[in-house]
Amino acid sequence: MNNFKPYYAVIFTSTQSEVTEGYSEMAETMENLAKQHEGYLGIDSGSNDTSTTRSGAVGITVSYWESIEAIKSWKANTEHLLAQQKGREQWYNWYNVRICKVEREYEFKLD
Amino acid sequence: MNNFKPYYAVIFTSTQSEVTEGYSEMAETMENLAKQHEGYLGIDSGSNDTSTTRSGAVGITVSYWESIEAIKSWKANTEHLLAQQKGREQWYNWYNVRICKVEREYEFKLD
Repeated sequence: MNNFKPYYAVIFTSTQSEVTEGYSEMAETMENLAKQHEGYLGIDSGSNDTSTTRSGAVGITVSYWESIEAIKSWKANTEHLLAQQKGREQWYNWYNVRICKVEREYEFKLD
Repeated sequence: MNNFKPYYAVIFTSTQSEVTEGYSEMAETMENLAKQHEGYLGIDSGSNDTSTTRSGAVGITVSYWESIEAIKSWKANTEHLLAQQKGREQWYNWYNVRICKVEREYEFKLD
């Protein structure tokens, strides 16, 4: 825990609408774009559904960033803004965004 | 955003081993126990796999808590400690725990 440098996590939870057209492609495009963005550290995502459409299921995507500034800058990215708008218009019934400071971290790995 | 009261999130990411026996029951038991714990606020979970066993897939569980003290107390809960030990011995190849302070939050809901 010594010398742990805090960083940031964005917890994005969502439920999708019936409209799934174009969603997977956009999700992939945005993930690739985020990876090139300054301050990007990583991403984890999952869903509690077992189907491919995820309609009605809660999805979680957590992205990790070096700073609040990097998150703000990514949020304001032009292509990302268009994707966010399409998300509200078409793909999501609901979403929630939590901006979090990662204060501690520990890991277990099997020998 | 005014008067937002910070709270805490524990981001638990993991990959499971081949051993799945007893895992679902324990996960359910622990979730129910956590819900009764002081300071518990909620939970979200998902997996990037579409099978039921999740072997090899990365799972994400995010739990929300009022304070760091509540997280510490839940981590030290006797039944939970046994579950953690079984997790390391049997169910997980790897896991990572991030303790985060939720500093901002916003929501979108379809009209």
